[in-house]
Amino acid sequence: MAEESVTLIGFWGSPFVLRVKWALELKVIQYQYVEEDLGNKSPMLLQYNPVYKKVPVLVHGNKPLAESLVILEYIDETWKQDPPLLPHDPYERAQARFWSRFVDEKSVPALMATFSKGGEEQQKAAQEVRESLKILEGGLEGKRYFGGERIGFADITIGLLGYWVRIVEETVGINLIDKELMPEFDAWIDDFLEFPVIKECMPHHDKLLYHSKAFHKILTSSST
Amino acid sequence: MAEESVTLIGFWGSPFVLRVKWALELKVIQYQYVEEDLGNKSPMLLQYNPVYKKVPVLVHGNKPLAESLVILEYIDETWKQDPPLLPHDPYERAQARFWSRFVDEKSVPALMATFSKGGEEQQKAAQEVRESLKILEGGLEGKRYFGGERIGFADITIGLLGYWVRIVEETVGINLIDKELMPEFDAWIDDFLEFPVIKECMPHHDKLLYHSKAFHKILTSSST
Repeated sequence: MAEESVTLIGFWGSPFVLRVKWALELKVIQYQYVEEDLGNKSPMLLQYNPVYKKVPVLVHGNKPLAESLVILEYIDETWKQDPPLLPHDPYERAQARFWSRFVDEKSVPALMATFSKGGEEQQKAAQEVRESLKILEGGLEGKRYFGGERIGFADITIGLLGYWVRIVEETVGINLIDKELMPEFDAWIDDFLEFPVIKECMPHHDKLLYHSKAFHKILTSSST
Repeated sequence: MAEESVTLIGFWGSPFVLRVKWALELKVIQYQYVEEDLGNKSPMLLQYNPVYKKVPVLVHGNKPLAESLVILEYIDETWKQDPPLLPHDPYERAQARFWSRFVDEKSVPALMATFSKGGEEQQKAAQEVRESLKILEGGLEGKRYFGGERIGFADITIGLLGYWVRIVEETVGINLIDKELMPEFDAWIDDFLEFPVIKECMPHHDKLLYHSKAFHKILTSSST
């Protein structure tokens, strides 16, 4: 079953798509990548993810999967080769899932508000991002990666945040990562983003920043 | 390891705590239940769930776990006796996780807004609840339970919604489950809530409705 065709429907600038790319590349899974035009969504996307109509969608054989965290679990359970994404121990697995959910429920909404809002609302959201990063740093507990000695599920899911936070900082001109208050988290981002397989998947920084600034301009000019 | 002591910190009226109770009871796991005073949170709760400071918290040996979906996965991976909560097949597991996340991300926030808001905002939220229930009905696909022939992970997670929707309907006097538009979902709620182990965990209806109405009164009177 693991040998059936694999297609990833994505958008080059989506950090959630990047999570799935990272997982596929880390496990050296062959796949076809289909770029989606989010301004004019394809019938394939609408057919395969009728509930959310969003990327990423992974199609394995004829079976579609949506939601990046759900897809990561599926990848780990279907392709059992190294590296495992989730650790073996149930409690460590629970911790990886806990931090991943925390990112999606707390950090990402605050980061999106920092990106799209202005004035007091933006300052409040930025402070929430800082607080959530500080809490995440606690999850490192002196380890090199959230996954311990090697990159795992939580690194992939939190990695999205690390890379995205820096782009938002540059786009809106607000500091979010205080290197003195969260030195471990800051060092972890550098270390993670320099890991060869992770680095190779990254969109080009200048292209992403250009896209981010253009999108930010549209969002903030329509809200005034 | 599975033999270490198990403590569930909960609140009798919390539907999220009920998910964990259902899972523990279905797998016949011995545990101690500690009722939490949410108006005056205990040092134990604050120590074991410093990030969210919420119930449910499951403490296994000396290891604390928070977040109901994370706890359910942990229970299934630690106590491997029947019934399994998640199915064996990776794609079916992904579907169970997808629907569970959908409930927490879409249905629950809309239901909470139906409960706590008034006027147009409430009507809009109620419509979102109806639409999300209709989508969930699609996940049944003619099966008796979301888990197929027996109750599983998705039944436990969506079951929370089924029981809570009915309490909100009674509390605020708005119809949310259209029996003609979603006959399968309506029948599934009845079937699920009548399953002996599930039924035995349920709080008494009148007590819950009384609590729900009192809480609703506090919320709506403070917002006017």
